[in-house]
Amino acid sequence: MRVVCAPTLILISVTICCSLTEKLSNGSSPNIIIMLMDDMGWGDLGVLGQPSKETPNLDAMAAQGILLTNFYTANPLCSPSRAALLTGRLPVRNGFYTTNAHARNAYTPQEIVGGISKDEILLPEMLKKNGYISKIVGKWHLGHRPQYLPLEHGFDEWFGSPNCHFGPYNSSVRPNIPVYNNSEMIGRYFEDFKIDLRTGESNLTRMYLMEGLDFIRRQTEAKQPFFLYWAADATHSPVYASKSFLGKSQRGRYGDAVMELDYSVGQILSLLQKLGIEKNTFVFFTSDNGAALMSGPQESMSTFLYLEVDLNRFLLICVIMRFMQLHASGSSGGSNGPFLCGKETTFEGGMREPAIAWWPGHIKGGAVSLQPANVMDLFTTSLALAGISPPDDRTLDGLDLTPVLLNGSHQLDNRPIFFYRGNEMMAVRLGQYKAHYWTWSNSLEELKEGINFCPGQEVPGVTTHDQKEHTLQPLIFHLGRDPGEKYPLSVLSKEYEEVLRSVSAVVQQHQKTLVPGMPQLNMCDLAVMNWSPPGCEKLGKCLKPPTSAPWKCNWPH
Amino acid sequence: MRVVCAPTLILISVTICCSLTEKLSNGSSPNIIIMLMDDMGWGDLGVLGQPSKETPNLDAMAAQGILLTNFYTANPLCSPSRAALLTGRLPVRNGFYTTNAHARNAYTPQEIVGGISKDEILLPEMLKKNGYISKIVGKWHLGHRPQYLPLEHGFDEWFGSPNCHFGPYNSSVRPNIPVYNNSEMIGRYFEDFKIDLRTGESNLTRMYLMEGLDFIRRQTEAKQPFFLYWAADATHSPVYASKSFLGKSQRGRYGDAVMELDYSVGQILSLLQKLGIEKNTFVFFTSDNGAALMSGPQESMSTFLYLEVDLNRFLLICVIMRFMQLHASGSSGGSNGPFLCGKETTFEGGMREPAIAWWPGHIKGGAVSLQPANVMDLFTTSLALAGISPPDDRTLDGLDLTPVLLNGSHQLDNRPIFFYRGNEMMAVRLGQYKAHYWTWSNSLEELKEGINFCPGQEVPGVTTHDQKEHTLQPLIFHLGRDPGEKYPLSVLSKEYEEVLRSVSAVVQQHQKTLVPGMPQLNMCDLAVMNWSPPGCEKLGKCLKPPTSAPWKCNWPH
Repeated sequence: MRVVCAPTLILISVTICCSLTEKLSNGSSPNIIIMLMDDMGWGDLGVLGQPSKETPNLDAMAAQGILLTNFYTANPLCSPSRAALLTGRLPVRNGFYTTNAHARNAYTPQEIVGGISKDEILLPEMLKKNGYISKIVGKWHLGHRPQYLPLEHGFDEWFGSPNCHFGPYNSSVRPNIPVYNNSEMIGRYFEDFKIDLRTGESNLTRMYLMEGLDFIRRQTEAKQPFFLYWAADATHSPVYASKSFLGKSQRGRYGDAVMELDYSVGQILSLLQKLGIEKNTFVFFTSDNGAALMSGPQESMSTFLYLEVDLNRFLLICVIMRFMQLHASGSSGGSNGPFLCGKETTFEGGMREPAIAWWPGHIKGGAVSLQPANVMDLFTTSLALAGISPPDDRTLDGLDLTPVLLNGSHQLDNRPIFFYRGNEMMAVRLGQYKAHYWTWSNSLEELKEGINFCPGQEVPGVTTHDQKEHTLQPLIFHLGRDPGEKYPLSVLSKEYEEVLRSVSAVVQQHQKTLVPGMPQLNMCDLAVMNWSPPGCEKLGKCLKPPTSAPWKCNWPH
Repeated sequence: MRVVCAPTLILISVTICCSLTEKLSNGSSPNIIIMLMDDMGWGDLGVLGQPSKETPNLDAMAAQGILLTNFYTANPLCSPSRAALLTGRLPVRNGFYTTNAHARNAYTPQEIVGGISKDEILLPEMLKKNGYISKIVGKWHLGHRPQYLPLEHGFDEWFGSPNCHFGPYNSSVRPNIPVYNNSEMIGRYFEDFKIDLRTGESNLTRMYLMEGLDFIRRQTEAKQPFFLYWAADATHSPVYASKSFLGKSQRGRYGDAVMELDYSVGQILSLLQKLGIEKNTFVFFTSDNGAALMSGPQESMSTFLYLEVDLNRFLLICVIMRFMQLHASGSSGGSNGPFLCGKETTFEGGMREPAIAWWPGHIKGGAVSLQPANVMDLFTTSLALAGISPPDDRTLDGLDLTPVLLNGSHQLDNRPIFFYRGNEMMAVRLGQYKAHYWTWSNSLEELKEGINFCPGQEVPGVTTHDQKEHTLQPLIFHLGRDPGEKYPLSVLSKEYEEVLRSVSAVVQQHQKTLVPGMPQLNMCDLAVMNWSPPGCEKLGKCLKPPTSAPWKCNWPH
């Protein structure tokens, strides 16, 4: 066991960061592409053990690049995870969390009042300093009110949507989600952009692919360094795929969606090679959180419930999930491989993500890195690659991974990984050890209604159905020997004692110096929904909002 | 869903078999190497999702060969699985089962009276017909009394042991397991062949590697077609590795053992290439059953219990496992990836195996086959490769996989895979569907004592702790959508109805025509233990057996 104390760690990271920024800034800055999947699990890639092996392009990407098997998100839910990636900061710092109740996951449904604060600096804003043009394709999820949209936060272009593709909704009660082209909506899901909930057919992934390819072509022609944030959402419930992929996998609709996303990744990498810019384009593939183990409309009837219930989305989801567990003919959610539980939880299944970095000529092909890393590192790493110094007026949680990615021999083994659920640090990983200070899967009340974030898995005292505190004596797992978090170290062992000493020092340092951001995900209001997004007039698609009546959002998980 | 009835299936297999046997017999017969691991799990290979990625050589073997992700053993326990591989027949046919109780796994501990029947024809016996020389390196496990040993059943050479490497034993109560060189013992485990239970150090895998390499070299020099059955046992409890591998993995001793086995595979493939015989050597890698989820002496104290308890090995194992669950600091068993439960069970975790076929110039590199296949196919496939007609006086359960391996486009999707536990057909797979006619993990009594074949996993009504009968209404899973066997199809669905119809026809046909072999694993006797194996006189290692007092073996699982 090798653990170092927090101050040493910080010193190391600063040293590496500065020296590399310096070095790389002398060369040309590579294009940067971050492909972020939505609810795709660690175990959904062939190279990470999916039995039906649907991802030949991602597997090839791994063979030509470096596979990071210990890569994490910053939160087991989409919005905070995405906010963390783009700010390089934990959600508890950047405001993407709630204080409405203890340790609750929160995100940005239509009724959310908040969004990404103007005080946060996003990656595209930083990249602008070195002349990058940035585009987001797909799901934004950092707030849908005008001041929170991508073009207000550094992106130059956007094709996609501010929220999840839930629906269809009855427009008088709840508007359908808009699709934007840059700063104006160009239609709505289920109205102008079809998603057939019965068949699972939608061309959205195809459209996102085309938008990505077009952006790459245009910037290459203009000899313009670019940042493409490709955030397709096809594996998020309700799962969809283009017609030519439907029925092609052995896993049902979810596998079909994975196949189409994999195909799209292949098309993007191919284009880079065709354009001859692959040696000048850094590509990173990952996902926003663990697979939702009860996601997706396996039974078409479950989706019809969306039509019926419009008042409270969380209640709605409960109803759907309950229906699914009682009647589903199979899970159409993804796979978290050997890990415990899934989305919404701070177990490995909720937080460990597939991750591949690809940069021919710079990253050695076929490499595997066991470096503990996370989405916030993508902020810092991208800046290092672009030769831009990171902001020095705030705490960043990301490390510069370039030593790991470009020179596999260098490992930053002992940097901590924090696992938050809302406002609570549930767990921390240090080296091979993960210490749980709080455990919770989902409430017993929900379980009785059929909601289970750990279906088929139950580790006594670990996958607890109440919020169980272990702060005085954390549950500690060795993730190398026990990646499934099934066998806590004996609290009487010498190993436990030694690990606890190191972990405690890191946790104390973290908590002592933590300055939480203003929580953005506390308030909801039906009046702030997507009634009249910019551009609606041209389309005749403006809807009349109800009177504002804000309430504290109810975050049940 | 495409399912065909059993008669059609048999027709197909016969046709393919004959045409290929004919075709291949005209060319030269390739050498055949079958590498059979012991308790290694599907999820232990990097290419199948092990997070710590300890198997670069196996991953490369898969990249140069074909990976079969739907490959099964014939039984979730070592002896019957090995008997099935070498005879091409289900254990219920070849006699490697018990009728002492319903649906119990049985194997060949030292006190077993039975072994492989003289009436069975083993692969090396068949291969002799075309001039092959055969060697087994490692664990035999088909009976340890003289008439059952490898050289009595077609092998020309043997270096290894008839039983598991349990011990050390007090020689007055129970002899230590002998190590054989051909037909004579050359020492005993823990006496002449060291296994340090405290440190996990043993050179056995290294010795097995050297024996394998030497055999390959000698046969190549002699221009002699050969069959090498390389059956190392390092990942079986108690787990060991050579000193240079200890502490090298992130998974503790188990991962170290995997690394050494992987290294050995690499050395064997390298030698084939160095000798220039890789295009004339068919190599198949797999394992004998799913990973033992509670295997291995993580805590050194647990192994000391072996010294204390000598009367009943099954009781003994219970004691050890109980100790481990209460005190273990982590599992040192392997990983079954996304599958349910492990060794001893007929869930996917007990029966699905890692499988790679490698034959440069004949098998296209980087291929993945989703063909449902099993260890008994290796018998038939090896004969097809060797240009030898399979025995026509008995039912064989193996199919000839050469169309699948050599021409990936050909898939025999609808051949059934039977999942037996002792004398009971617990489940059957047909296409993507698996129907459970009986479910059982392990007894409630054992569970209370800490034995759990599905630790951290519990699927209500599926991982049952009593033998639950579902013969009138089997539990059916779609293994593509639901590889973890967590969501049974609704019995009210049309899909269930259709699948049941097809599966029932196959099961009826199977059960109607099944002629069970004489059960070999019913009787135990302390007098038959390895007291005085052939060769003991030369070594002064003969021990005096007690008076014969046979009893019906107690098979608790």
